[in-house]
Amino acid sequence: MKKLGPIPQGYAAQNGELIIAGQCVSEIAAAAGSTPLFIYSKDMLDGRIALLRQSMPQKLAVHYAMKANPFGPFLQHIYPMVDGIDIASGGELDIAIKNGVDPEKISFAGPGKRDEELSKAIKCGVTINLESENEMARAIAIGRQLNIIPNLAVRVNPSFDLKGSGMKMGGGAKQFGVDEERVPAMVRALIDQGANWRGFHIFSGSQALSADAIIDAQAQTINLAARLCNEIGVPAPKVNLGGGFGIAYFPGDMPLDVFAIGMALEEKLNNLPPILQNTHFCIELGRYISGEAGVYVTKIIDKKISHGEIFLITDGGLHHQLAASGNFGTVVRRNYPVAIANKFESTDQEVASVVGCLCTPLDRLADQALLPRAEIGDIVAVFCAGAYGATASPSAFLGQGHAQEILL
Amino acid sequence: MKKLGPIPQGYAAQNGELIIAGQCVSEIAAAAGSTPLFIYSKDMLDGRIALLRQSMPQKLAVHYAMKANPFGPFLQHIYPMVDGIDIASGGELDIAIKNGVDPEKISFAGPGKRDEELSKAIKCGVTINLESENEMARAIAIGRQLNIIPNLAVRVNPSFDLKGSGMKMGGGAKQFGVDEERVPAMVRALIDQGANWRGFHIFSGSQALSADAIIDAQAQTINLAARLCNEIGVPAPKVNLGGGFGIAYFPGDMPLDVFAIGMALEEKLNNLPPILQNTHFCIELGRYISGEAGVYVTKIIDKKISHGEIFLITDGGLHHQLAASGNFGTVVRRNYPVAIANKFESTDQEVASVVGCLCTPLDRLADQALLPRAEIGDIVAVFCAGAYGATASPSAFLGQGHAQEILL
Repeated sequence: MKKLGPIPQGYAAQNGELIIAGQCVSEIAAAAGSTPLFIYSKDMLDGRIALLRQSMPQKLAVHYAMKANPFGPFLQHIYPMVDGIDIASGGELDIAIKNGVDPEKISFAGPGKRDEELSKAIKCGVTINLESENEMARAIAIGRQLNIIPNLAVRVNPSFDLKGSGMKMGGGAKQFGVDEERVPAMVRALIDQGANWRGFHIFSGSQALSADAIIDAQAQTINLAARLCNEIGVPAPKVNLGGGFGIAYFPGDMPLDVFAIGMALEEKLNNLPPILQNTHFCIELGRYISGEAGVYVTKIIDKKISHGEIFLITDGGLHHQLAASGNFGTVVRRNYPVAIANKFESTDQEVASVVGCLCTPLDRLADQALLPRAEIGDIVAVFCAGAYGATASPSAFLGQGHAQEILL
Repeated sequence: MKKLGPIPQGYAAQNGELIIAGQCVSEIAAAAGSTPLFIYSKDMLDGRIALLRQSMPQKLAVHYAMKANPFGPFLQHIYPMVDGIDIASGGELDIAIKNGVDPEKISFAGPGKRDEELSKAIKCGVTINLESENEMARAIAIGRQLNIIPNLAVRVNPSFDLKGSGMKMGGGAKQFGVDEERVPAMVRALIDQGANWRGFHIFSGSQALSADAIIDAQAQTINLAARLCNEIGVPAPKVNLGGGFGIAYFPGDMPLDVFAIGMALEEKLNNLPPILQNTHFCIELGRYISGEAGVYVTKIIDKKISHGEIFLITDGGLHHQLAASGNFGTVVRRNYPVAIANKFESTDQEVASVVGCLCTPLDRLADQALLPRAEIGDIVAVFCAGAYGATASPSAFLGQGHAQEILL
């Protein structure tokens, strides 16, 4: 038997069935007309933003990194609650604008920006987080061609990383940003050439569950920003402290202590070095805002026993939930939080594996997990599906196609 | 420095540049109008089918498993050269029919077939490889409703696996097929209920490079089929021996010795047990037919140095080539065959990592590889991109979208 990840706080049952936005999941699925289905919850989003506003310093801006979940209604719901939107491509810029995001509230990071993407971003006033000197030269040249002064920040590859993070974005050779020692000369050149310098983007890692590690990385980030500004001789208008706030996916994971992070950051922001006194600070969160607000729902279409093991075969799979199958940047496969939605509180349990409908052994949503005894027609819920789910999975695989997405 | 996988035989350079179908890759890319781009080669497909026809026994049918690459023109080109098409979903059935495939030449495997998919398949005469007793009951009921006798084969979960295979589909508890000891009763019930029994589908694993392992698995498969038929008391009309033929992706991989497999299989087919004398045999190949016929082509849009390491940043990435990034069923990341297409034979080399344009450290197409010294504008070719590339990757990730695909 293998343990399941922890179901996020905020989900509850009514008459033994998982409810989202006050509705039974089976009713939601019936109304949607088909499974599999991503159900996103406004309540969960609202609660998460409220938690951030309570815990983080008042003067800290909170951005949503839409790469985690760019579903239109989802983005529209989050947008009025945050201070900015971070994008990772020209495609995301199109989606953001289509959903009513003010381009002036957008910043754009990504190591391989094409000229067309830079041009589109400059035209509408987006802040570009430059990832190299070459990208700076291209952005400035495009700005001149367009006769628009571009808003340019510099993404710094810091010499430290975020300890314990799922993905390290600093602390060594990286494709992201500019090594810190080359940053002052680059910023001076940028200012000299007449661009509008917007400050720094410093992202040291993602998906960390240790408050101490994040506190340490944020402190180092602010110190680095101060050091760079002193060398440049100009204060940074803005510093994006990155993200890194993780969510609990796996057995034993504990929710991040955001209050500890907020208190330490408040202290740090209240005692800034002189050169950063007027600097605006923001954090950029994708997964932490969106992840727990989504549930992937899939129906059991077969139940079989092979060599004594039980398999619950669903109409979903890794084509919608690649990360939950353990095939996206994971070395050792562990179980996400998974439940039988319509038998949410049943104590009649058995050990079963939940698999998808694809013809590949990779397609496993829960491995040998203790679950309520399920039958054909029952509904499986995979939690933590609000981030890096629908768009981070190969939906066309084996001719399957997209899952429906709804926001309630 | 980390080694690169071997470039498949059949690719050559002209004036120092990789050519496909007699054209320089840079010209193909220019004509296509944009990168990234999947270029598929008819010549490579023809050569591969010719190799199979030369090496395999004459009486063995060869099927193409379109899950490996369902691109319409690609499927249309392969179809007349093979004896059948294997599908894994109702979506693939639609694509096959749209591209002119005769449904009678189709067989359909997959552990989670929905009723609509069974119905569609039965209506057009597709052979369904049943994965469970429950699926049999559903297929028979649907056939009765439609007043059509369904063509049903039984997928067997064999008690052996394909040694050394990349993915094991047998030899223990599996979501695929029916454990062999339950198969005779199932087939008798199927015949008793008036279905048209089409035989067995026995798939023990995929992506093996050892001819001996495949020879052994095929022999065991034929023995198992004979044993099952003797128990049932009826000869199987057809036995699908599965696939398992691997291609060389990684450093040290050697091409599969298909002649050794063909000779052993010829011997085996010439000495069949009495009950299989009139049985038709086929193999089902996806990756082996299509994989080496595709090259993924992406342009370098930045070159940067971080902490002394060189990064070539391309306009492509894992959103089109998930497997090449090492994030699809791989435990240890190894390099695919990768080259600088327009400097194919250059001896001026340096160690560089090829990364994609996505804002994630997972997006790496070649790790610290010795490559011709490349600059912005040069073209990277990732080989073995004809199978499990475009449709097995999360193309919507970070707002990127599909890559173009062309067949030359």
